[in-house]
Amino acid sequence: MLAETDAGTFLRDGLVGQGEEITFDPKDLGPVIPRPGKIICVGLNYARHILEMGRELPEFPTLFIKFPEALTGPYDDIHVRESDAGALDAEAELAVVIGKRAHRVSVEEATDHILGYSIINDYTQRDWQTRTLQFHQGKSYYRSAGFGPWIVTADEWQPGPRITATWGEEVFQDGTTDDLIFDCPTLVSFISQIYPLEPGDVIATGTPDGVGHARTPKRYIRDGETVTVAIEGIGAIANTTYIDSE
Amino acid sequence: MLAETDAGTFLRDGLVGQGEEITFDPKDLGPVIPRPGKIICVGLNYARHILEMGRELPEFPTLFIKFPEALTGPYDDIHVRESDAGALDAEAELAVVIGKRAHRVSVEEATDHILGYSIINDYTQRDWQTRTLQFHQGKSYYRSAGFGPWIVTADEWQPGPRITATWGEEVFQDGTTDDLIFDCPTLVSFISQIYPLEPGDVIATGTPDGVGHARTPKRYIRDGETVTVAIEGIGAIANTTYIDSE
Repeated sequence: MLAETDAGTFLRDGLVGQGEEITFDPKDLGPVIPRPGKIICVGLNYARHILEMGRELPEFPTLFIKFPEALTGPYDDIHVRESDAGALDAEAELAVVIGKRAHRVSVEEATDHILGYSIINDYTQRDWQTRTLQFHQGKSYYRSAGFGPWIVTADEWQPGPRITATWGEEVFQDGTTDDLIFDCPTLVSFISQIYPLEPGDVIATGTPDGVGHARTPKRYIRDGETVTVAIEGIGAIANTTYIDSE
Repeated sequence: MLAETDAGTFLRDGLVGQGEEITFDPKDLGPVIPRPGKIICVGLNYARHILEMGRELPEFPTLFIKFPEALTGPYDDIHVRESDAGALDAEAELAVVIGKRAHRVSVEEATDHILGYSIINDYTQRDWQTRTLQFHQGKSYYRSAGFGPWIVTADEWQPGPRITATWGEEVFQDGTTDDLIFDCPTLVSFISQIYPLEPGDVIATGTPDGVGHARTPKRYIRDGETVTVAIEGIGAIANTTYIDSE
């Protein structure tokens, strides 16, 4: 539990450079935060992705929720039942991790509440996302969203570098993390007006253009296909989807 | 933590009838579950409410999320900043409480996973709900949603009885809890296909017609106004809203 703790201080002063060196297999890694209190996803935050989905530039951030049950490790396999696999898509996203409780903070103050950054694949069932007006039910499939592989602290990395999603060998999404309509401090400030953000909470900041659903023809994730999401200066996550017959 | 526990057995065999009798003030009560792992809200689940909101009867349940930060006690006062109070509304709802982990259960099996029922006011900022396509940001205001006063176990109460929302002295909503398009086992089964439901998770099952936003003229909660939500056989919750100048 990081609640009531300044996770930034904790991480910088308490963990870095201590302990034995270990070796591990990438598949051993779990989600970089195993169970965030809240995962708030931002829809439609890259201009070109908004235009490809046929929408207008927004005045306010669009927010929806992914539950911790939807997370999986940065190199874990994803298993989807055949009947749930009608329109599987990936969304490469920069994840903001909160380090210090933020309630009703200004945009200027918000920077201090960001611990750092990570990578998340906002894995989506497009058919489930669109069968009602609310995205949630297509955005939270059990153990579908790779998250990690680690958190890069805000003193070491800032939005700007390239973000990509690669399906097999083909680059589908290719953007820069400073192309956000609502940047990270703006999102922290905006959300903190609704409810407090706590250490370990995660904001998935939206995805650039190039998703499978917006291609012509539409293209969905296939059985055995690996989607790699990479952000320069942070690293990469890569998850292979298996469609299980029932 | 009730995770991995059959909360139904726990409650029936472990707590009922034990311990000293105490007296308390209703205002002492917190949310009947202080921090549910998940609160899943169902939109548009009473036919008359759907029609008053100008929508068609749905094929699938509409799901959105309220965070635990939005909960407040069944008789607590609600404080809203003046700039956040443009269109405050109430939604009387039957809350289903999960008693046993439910993952990919059938409608028939779902009944066994329901611990019992409670009352929730799905307190809503209508302007924030509708300023983007996604309801969430208008559905999760800090400490706005009364929840309780207690859980009535499923062997003692079943959906059917009357549900009302009363603003001051005036009854705004008046329905019956068996008028759901998607009934409680159907909701548990449906959601459990997406991710596991755990003991203590809550489903807010939707609201009947009569909300302030759908009246002519539209009517929103005023400073000092009390909204009482009652379900026959369960009880009532009553929260007074105060609009605070900044």
